[in-house]
Order: sequence, then C-alpha cells, then structure tokens
Amino acid sequence: MATFELVAECQETHARAGLLHTARGTIETPVFMPVGTQATVKGLTQRDLAEDLDVRILLANTYHLYLRPGHELIGGMGGLHRFMSWPRAILTDSGGYQVFSLSDLRKITEEGVTFQSHLDGDRHLFTPESTVDVQMALGSDIMMALDECPEYPVSHEYAREAMERTVTWAQAGFAHYRRKVAESDEGQSLFPIVQGSMFPDLRRECAERLVGLEADGYAVGGLSVGEPRPLSLEMVEATGPALPRDRPRYTMGVGMPEELPEYVARGIDMMDCVLPSRNARNGYLFTSQGRIIIKNTRFKDDRRPVDENCSCYTCCTYSRAYLRHLYQAGEILYAVLATRHNLRRYLDIMREIRHAIVLGQFPKYLKAVRAVPVEVE
Amino acid sequence: MATFELVAECQETHARAGLLHTARGTIETPVFMPVGTQATVKGLTQRDLAEDLDVRILLANTYHLYLRPGHELIGGMGGLHRFMSWPRAILTDSGGYQVFSLSDLRKITEEGVTFQSHLDGDRHLFTPESTVDVQMALGSDIMMALDECPEYPVSHEYAREAMERTVTWAQAGFAHYRRKVAESDEGQSLFPIVQGSMFPDLRRECAERLVGLEADGYAVGGLSVGEPRPLSLEMVEATGPALPRDRPRYTMGVGMPEELPEYVARGIDMMDCVLPSRNARNGYLFTSQGRIIIKNTRFKDDRRPVDENCSCYTCCTYSRAYLRHLYQAGEILYAVLATRHNLRRYLDIMREIRHAIVLGQFPKYLKAVRAVPVEVE
Repeated sequence: MATFELVAECQETHARAGLLHTARGTIETPVFMPVGTQATVKGLTQRDLAEDLDVRILLANTYHLYLRPGHELIGGMGGLHRFMSWPRAILTDSGGYQVFSLSDLRKITEEGVTFQSHLDGDRHLFTPESTVDVQMALGSDIMMALDECPEYPVSHEYAREAMERTVTWAQAGFAHYRRKVAESDEGQSLFPIVQGSMFPDLRRECAERLVGLEADGYAVGGLSVGEPRPLSLEMVEATGPALPRDRPRYTMGVGMPEELPEYVARGIDMMDCVLPSRNARNGYLFTSQGRIIIKNTRFKDDRRPVDENCSCYTCCTYSRAYLRHLYQAGEILYAVLATRHNLRRYLDIMREIRHAIVLGQFPKYLKAVRAVPVEVE
Repeated sequence: MATFELVAECQETHARAGLLHTARGTIETPVFMPVGTQATVKGLTQRDLAEDLDVRILLANTYHLYLRPGHELIGGMGGLHRFMSWPRAILTDSGGYQVFSLSDLRKITEEGVTFQSHLDGDRHLFTPESTVDVQMALGSDIMMALDECPEYPVSHEYAREAMERTVTWAQAGFAHYRRKVAESDEGQSLFPIVQGSMFPDLRRECAERLVGLEADGYAVGGLSVGEPRPLSLEMVEATGPALPRDRPRYTMGVGMPEELPEYVARGIDMMDCVLPSRNARNGYLFTSQGRIIIKNTRFKDDRRPVDENCSCYTCCTYSRAYLRHLYQAGEILYAVLATRHNLRRYLDIMREIRHAIVLGQFPKYLKAVRAVPVEVE
C-alpha cells in the first residue's frame, strides 16, 4: 500500500512536502510523474530515467496497454515492472480519460463504458471492476478508479450526472478491489477521482462522497480538457478542503512549468503530464529563464547549453546550435535529448518547490517564479 | 596524420590486425565505423557510443553537413568534433557518393560535379579542391577524395571514363590538400578512392595509379551499388595486391554481418555501413545465431534478450517481448534500443575477428561463422 507522510506545510499557502512510501521505494512529494503511455517514456531508457533523472515514479496508461500488448500478456510476463524493466513505482490511470478522448462510439451505461479501439475498431467494455482487474494484472503500485471525464464545457445537469456515475463506479471499483486485495498479498493502492466539471459545488460534493472510501490517496480529474487555467485552479481550490489532510492529492494531466507551483500552492502533491515530452518533441524547451523555441535562427550558432542552470545530460553535453541542427534535420536524437532536458526541468522545479516548502520559503519562491516570463527574452 | 601499424597477419587469408593511430586516439583494426550521417548516429548519444559501445571512430557525411547546417557554421563553432561533442576520431566521406545517389540534375565536368540539393533544389558545385576545403573546415581526422561512383551496371567504356576522372580528381585533391596541410598544423589525412565499377582490370589500374599519391590509406569505393555480392568481393580481391601493405584499406558502405569477415579475409581493415542502424529501425536484429525479425508473433512473450550472447545495454535490460511491443507501437525507444544492439553486434564481430587474427585462428573462425544461418532457426 502507498502510505503518505507529511513532512512540512507552508504557513501561507496550502503547499505541503511529504513522503509517499510504496513497496517500490519512497517518493518525495510534491512529485511530477513522467508519462510512459505505452510502457515507455518516449525515447528514454530506464537508465536515463533512473540514473540521470532520478525518477521515482512514472505513469503508464491502462487503456493503451490493455489494447496493446494486452494486460494478460504483461501479467503473464510478471507484470509491468518486469515487462518494461522498471523496478521503481508505477501509477496506472484507469483508462477512462482515453476512452473519452481517443476511442469512437462510446456508450456509457451504469455498468460501464463500451468503446471502439482506436487501433482496430474492435469493441471493448470497461467496467469499474474490469479496470481494477486490468491494473491488478499490470501490477502497478497505484491504480486509478474508472471515472467519467466530461468534455468542456458541459451543463451543470450533465456534469452532475457524470459526477454521480463517477462516484457509483468508484464505490463499485473499491468493493471489487477490497475483495481482490483480501485474496492477495499485493500492495497495490487504488485512488478514486474527483469529477464535477467546472462546478465548485459538484467538485466539493464529489470529494465529500469519495472520502468515505478511505482511499490511500485522491485524484482531481477532468482538468486540462480545454478550460481556462484559472478555472482549473479554482476547481482544485474547491476540492481541497473536502479531502483528508493525511492522504496524497493528485491532479491528473497538468500542467505547464509555471503552473506546477500553483497546483502545489493549492495543496497538490502529485502531478503528471505529457507536456514536457510532447513540447520537447515539438521544439519547445523549458529553461529556468522561460521557454525557448529551438528552431529559431538565433540559435543556429549558439554554443550555450539549452539552460546554463541545468545539469541534465543534454545541457552538460550539447549546445543549442547542435540541438537546433538535429531538430531541423528531423533526427531521432533530437527527441531523445530534448525530452531528457524537459523532464529534468520539471523534476528540478518539483525539487525546488519541495526545498522551498521544507525551508519555509515557499511563498517567496512562488513570488519569484511568478515573475519569470513564459518565453526567454 | 593517421598512421597504421600492422600487428598480425593471417597465414592463410589476407586478414590483418592493426592499429590506426590518429590525433584523437588509437583504433584497433579491423574496425567497423558507425555512420553518423548528419552529425549523429541515429538515436544514440555520445555517451552511448563512447561508454557503452566503445566506438573509437565514426563516419560523418560531407554532402549532408555541407548542405545543413553548412561547413562554415560547423567550422566557426570549432569543427565537427566540438559541434557534435564527439572527442574521438571522425572520418568524413567526400560527398561524391551522395551527389550521385541523392541529388538531382548532376552534371559532371573535368572541373567537378554540379548538383541540386535534395533539400531545397539549390545548385552547388563540388570540385576535388572544394571537398577538401569543406572537410578541412569540418576538421575530420580522415578525409576522402572526391570520386565518381558509377551506378551498376555500366559499360567498360563508361567505367574507364569514371575511373580516369576519379584518378584525375584525386591528384587534384591531393595537390590542393598538400598545399593546405603545409599551411596548417592540422593532422588530417586524405584517402583516395579506388573505382572501376565491376571490372578487375580497371580496379587494378586505378589502384596502381593512386598508390603514387602516397596516401595514409586507401579506400575501395563503388561497392554496394546493386551488384551481386560475389562481385563486390572479387573487386576487393582485384584491388588488394596493388595497394601498399603498410596502409589501411577501407571498403565504403559494406556490409551485412556475414560479409564483414569476408572483406577482412581479403585484406580490408576499415568498413562503414548504414545497414546495422537502418535494419534496426526496420525491425531486423542481428544476433550471434543469425537475424531475427522482431515483429514476428513468436516473440510476443519471449522473455529472452535479443541475443543471449550479447552484453549490450539493450540485451542486458530488455526482453524480445518488450522490444516487439515498442516496435509494434511505433515507439522511438525501439529505434534507440535496436540501433544500440545492432551496432554492438557489428563491433563485437570486428572484435571477434581481430581476436581470431591475433591468435592465428582466423581461418577456423571464418569457417565457423560461414556455417551460421542468416536467419535464426
């Protein structure tokens, strides 16, 4: 089971520093979890992740792995950790978000959701119970309950309906999970997901009802679905007070580098996002001075590293000019090096945040980072 | 200057083991040089190449780098070694092969060859002198003279014409090179290239005429242009006796794993080829037991490494099942890991060959490897 230990709390904001203990190591929080959608963080080896970046937990995607190569295959090979040669912690999402964003012909019933695979059009059914079974076969350390993630915007009426279903599914998933866990020694945790679209009253109600499950942690889902950023933060603010102080809180799918401290200031302990890796591949590199667009001509003979304050392998070894050349030439190595840098930037931000909280200087840190421009000037 | 030291010679074949001393380290021969076309071995970092694979020399491509990012830019940044953060030896080809294989609207005159860039259609001229200048700006340790590489098949008449031009160009290139070298302290070597299509008499004549240049090494070009393999080997056999025993011999653009010892048996010391990396990306993995096609269903739950006799990072860390999954999912990491393995296989073959030569067991080794099937059974 994942257990959470509070280490320090900010006196002015809701920021917390903690330790998340899992069977596969202890994770310092707040933590950013790199996304390994298809059992791989795109372009990075496990050595890059563990030794160079010191990643302690990464995320993998139940929907994708269920479809290919299949959870039975992975389970039969000893679970996801062995399959992808990753000995540290793994969190898997429930697949719900992908069903709602990637697949066609979804049909939602009280039982669950039927959908067509985006790979071959085959029909599948996810139920609150089956997604637990899939994740148990994968063997992830933290599993997520099936939820309905509505698009943005939706009516209050629809948002309530989806939220009610999310609660019902979470209850069904937990009942199933408790039965399965009783049968096994596996130390897997299950987190339910707070939904409620952009309505604070629904968010609050959802959180209050999920707390009864006495889960090892709670997620805030349904963000980053197209809403303006202030609204996402408002939803976290609405949810926070209803969640137990002694359990980790996880916002799914956020955010940009400048948003990370904002979520932490609102009491969030865990985050994941494809933005660092996707932005890297698209030529956007995050630095301590803001973002740079590597294809810009001004970098063509720039001997400096991407970020002079960064000690990642990319910054220690290569120049902006070389990275620009690789990007322009469409070389794989560009994606490898850029992803490595951007992930390091995210992990460094989280380390800086944690350090500031522990030292009691988070408000000062927050003020300083809010003054950094988005783009390097 | 690159100087060559013979260490051992096979008594039954023409195989030799040697040391190639360059300003950037000593290289054990026979050697396979990974291809870094655009100043990058696709998907591999310099740490992967130097620390994991112990690559001592790699090849970069004058045509590609001349067009993008440009030799002036690279020269201005301190040369190719600094640009790509590769402190060990680099060999650059002359660009001739790419002009003949990639660009449009080539026009060959005695002066040189005009061509259109495959990137933007701009017109350019390569002369025997200009390709030396470009390579001197790049700062490679071993440069290649401009040659005309005819397609296959061509008439004896055309092959003679192209061979004569290659000799004339090599003489012009060397005259220019000697003037430039006299002006600088740079320790760059220039190798001329033996042409003559698939005609032994022309190969022999070409080699005899180039030997007068007293170069630091000699290349056999114009192979792997579509001819049957026995013919390629025959051309090397025809050329060998005309080349000085105390200089390294380099066959350009060869070959498949099973061909490497065949070239060595015919007196070749250096090889380069895109096959290990290109095959890797296309799903063909070379092992000590033959080739495997990773997408095959039979590997879907195969827990074994690609090659149980290989100690590369890929084989030490991942299973065939995982690599197959990455390949099927179109993941970048597949290309990274597969390239790493295939290059290691090529380097291991060369180490085995050298070891066998030094121990006086090369004929036995050759017999054994000739019995290995191309595909794993």
